[in-house]
Amino acid sequence: MLTPLVTFLSDFGTADWFVGVVHGVLHETCPGVRIVDLTHHIPPGDIERAAFVLEAATPDFGAGTIHLVVVDPGVGTGRRAIAVRAHDQVFVGPDNGVLEWALSAPGAEVREVTDTKLFRQPVSRTFHGRDVFAPVAAHLASGLKFESIGPVAKLPLRLTVQAPRTVNGELVGRIMFVDRFGNLLTNLTERHLAERFPNAAPEQFEVEAAGYVIRGLARAYADAPVGSTVAILDSSGRLEIAQVRGDASQRLGLSARDDVRVRLRR
Amino acid sequence: MLTPLVTFLSDFGTADWFVGVVHGVLHETCPGVRIVDLTHHIPPGDIERAAFVLEAATPDFGAGTIHLVVVDPGVGTGRRAIAVRAHDQVFVGPDNGVLEWALSAPGAEVREVTDTKLFRQPVSRTFHGRDVFAPVAAHLASGLKFESIGPVAKLPLRLTVQAPRTVNGELVGRIMFVDRFGNLLTNLTERHLAERFPNAAPEQFEVEAAGYVIRGLARAYADAPVGSTVAILDSSGRLEIAQVRGDASQRLGLSARDDVRVRLRR
Amino acid sequence: MLTPLVTFLSDFGTADWFVGVVHGVLHETCPGVRIVDLTHHIPPGDIERAAFVLEAATPDFGAGTIHLVVVDPGVGTGRRAIAVRAHDQVFVGPDNGVLEWALSAPGAEVREVTDTKLFRQPVSRTFHGRDVFAPVAAHLASGLKFESIGPVAKLPLRLTVQAPRTVNGELVGRIMFVDRFGNLLTNLTERHLAERFPNAAPEQFEVEAAGYVIRGLARAYADAPVGSTVAILDSSGRLEIAQVRGDASQRLGLSARDDVRVRLRR
Repeated sequence: MLTPLVTFLSDFGTADWFVGVVHGVLHETCPGVRIVDLTHHIPPGDIERAAFVLEAATPDFGAGTIHLVVVDPGVGTGRRAIAVRAHDQVFVGPDNGVLEWALSAPGAEVREVTDTKLFRQPVSRTFHGRDVFAPVAAHLASGLKFESIGPVAKLPLRLTVQAPRTVNGELVGRIMFVDRFGNLLTNLTERHLAERFPNAAPEQFEVEAAGYVIRGLARAYADAPVGSTVAILDSSGRLEIAQVRGDASQRLGLSARDDVRVRLRR
Repeated sequence: MLTPLVTFLSDFGTADWFVGVVHGVLHETCPGVRIVDLTHHIPPGDIERAAFVLEAATPDFGAGTIHLVVVDPGVGTGRRAIAVRAHDQVFVGPDNGVLEWALSAPGAEVREVTDTKLFRQPVSRTFHGRDVFAPVAAHLASGLKFESIGPVAKLPLRLTVQAPRTVNGELVGRIMFVDRFGNLLTNLTERHLAERFPNAAPEQFEVEAAGYVIRGLARAYADAPVGSTVAILDSSGRLEIAQVRGDASQRLGLSARDDVRVRLRR
Repeated sequence: MLTPLVTFLSDFGTADWFVGVVHGVLHETCPGVRIVDLTHHIPPGDIERAAFVLEAATPDFGAGTIHLVVVDPGVGTGRRAIAVRAHDQVFVGPDNGVLEWALSAPGAEVREVTDTKLFRQPVSRTFHGRDVFAPVAAHLASGLKFESIGPVAKLPLRLTVQAPRTVNGELVGRIMFVDRFGNLLTNLTERHLAERFPNAAPEQFEVEAAGYVIRGLARAYADAPVGSTVAILDSSGRLEIAQVRGDASQRLGLSARDDVRVRLRR
């Protein structure tokens, strides 16, 4: 009988030994655990970026997956440790907004992790990834009931997310992430476009960012010549600006937080 | 009963979540799968480099290993997905030349991956690593017969590989790869040297690159003083230029694609 | 029945395929092996740094863990391959000082790895990680008795470690490591402080580095305002200088080998 998958997302980097130690604790607490590293290259303490990665990555995992998230600049303060059951998955991490993707789900259940018997003892004041979050995730992977980790947590800290808005008839979103390939991932999804512009055909759209205008939505990177810039709904249904076989971020000088506007061509 | 090993080579980097998602799909499709990451730091779209890594790494794996290769700048175009059975192993990836090491093997069998029942649905136009290649590799690891993935693929795209040649009695190859330690790995092998210069003793060889001449083949890095430059047949039988406890690439100002000449000393 | 954990520490980087090949050998030699990567980003040949990582990371692993260490600039020379049983764990690596953490333990047993039947054949002169160390670690994980790997090794090479000392009543140590977060990890531990300054309260301490003076020991990063610099006993009981939500190394211009002085406030 295989255990659930445990994914692991952190800002630990891979040059030190912190990721390895957390893996060790997971194996020790849940023999046979199956671990999938999402990434450990979140810049130190960058809660917003980690929250986006969680939103982007976790829908591709199955029901029952346990997500361990350790981006925890407030370690050692009074910030709570929480677990959230949402999207048929469980998310374990600090109560600092990094679990926004789970917290914002309809019907999300939030528990405060308080049962110290679940922790690795003694609990340090500086490494709760090792002493608190990993043990709890591993116990859940071993079959611990979600309800057993502690009482319902009221008022978890929420991340302020600027939702897409409509301005002068245009849908205005923003770039959330520049990926490995220089693709610019936005907070606009297929659903946003369908709601704002029902029944519009792909070629009717016009996408503007930093004065640069892209006409039509491509269906694949290859729908346009090499070197050209396209707007495309990516593998997660997210509007993305890409350069065909190139780096759109470098080409356009755009990065996270820049605005993106979508309208229909006249 | 353990599954075959699945190795994974890509240009995804490790700062995003793409590698993690592919691991997730492998685990979901083949419970108990054993995954070995080769590297994910192939520069985006660099098919030649990935092809070399495949050639260098895969002979060290056992029969039955399945190699998943996702360096796929043509994702979403008409390029085919293929699997190749060669060297008693199976290679899964795009039909863009990256599998040249397998395709060039005597008796290589090539199949086009066409059975959409094997895919993750819906199949996106931008992430076939997740939707096509990983599921097929995982099904093969679960025991799917090679012949079941689709029909024989005719005329797979081949990589133009410049073979070593003889010029004025010299064997002329080139540097293919600079490794972590600054060692310069060439496309010249023990076999090339033996065929061109039968019965020559190690000390008879002379290796020249960028005007720099190295006399004799070392048997270990330590056969020469610290700081000196040596030519050596490496752990894969490949001619390599190295600096003892140093970085030959920096020292000599050489990198991939530079010529290397081998002759016998007069 | 699960195998012991095998941790893996090297200077291989992750851009080439060497880590993957070693994983492959571990899986092949010990089916079902469970591998935890500590880090592979030790700078090439940096034995001291690897030795520190081993000291910092391995106490967090359980009894029976096998640690595979491949930082081996002397590969191919006469340097021995050794295994050390210490701290209820086993350490496998080159006899070049990198296993100092194990060698310095009371009751450490050291064996020279000489049974060539354990090796991967043929043994290359340049990649003992693949051909010697990984197979031996995997055989140990498969249940091979420690005593079976070879005879007792006399006079293993020891790393010269500068121990903390007392100068003019001050405890003088040094910075050993700058971690991902810019925290400055020293060679001074809770025990050193307790021995030198028995019964001192945290607020009595004064820590000085490069002319910068920190008053008192914090109990958590959050005991001081954001941006301030604190001295703290970290999650391993090690004195550390940190900047609250910042990078102490950048802030103070300090790095490994710099001195740190501890005294009581007047």
